[in-house]
Amino acid sequence: MKKAIFYHAGCPVCTSAENDIVNLIGLENVEIIHLGNDRTKIREAEHAGVQSVPALVTPTGNVLHINFGASIEDVKK
Amino acid sequence: MKKAIFYHAGCPVCTSAENDIVNLIGLENVEIIHLGNDRTKIREAEHAGVQSVPALVTPTGNVLHINFGASIEDVKK
Repeated sequence: MKKAIFYHAGCPVCTSAENDIVNLIGLENVEIIHLGNDRTKIREAEHAGVQSVPALVTPTGNVLHINFGASIEDVKK
Repeated sequence: MKKAIFYHAGCPVCTSAENDIVNLIGLENVEIIHLGNDRTKIREAEHAGVQSVPALVTPTGNVLHINFGASIEDVKK
């Protein structure tokens, strides 16, 4: 199965959600991308439809925005 | 492992998220509760911290609000 991608920005809401997602679906099934540390991926996240972080992009390409840590616009700053 | 609980209210956003969650974590690991059909569970959802649906309550009790379908107040109406 193609991996899900979890985008976050290191905020407390993000870290908490990351732990929950990893526990639920398994670390082997999800790629974790920290947009604060890996800013080249911000564009990729936007193209996938990510509007806020934390967000999980499913293997089928759907975006699940989880709780609310920061808007993607704020991450760009 | 204790099951996660997915609360929803039958809205299109809910149904889409339900499919994604079931695909990601497996139907055997999540209990699905439709608050529109099972209104006695609304109170339980509120006690768990659910503020909007769809939401996933993890086995450890954390609430992941996913996208946004409807507020729990709207579900009560």
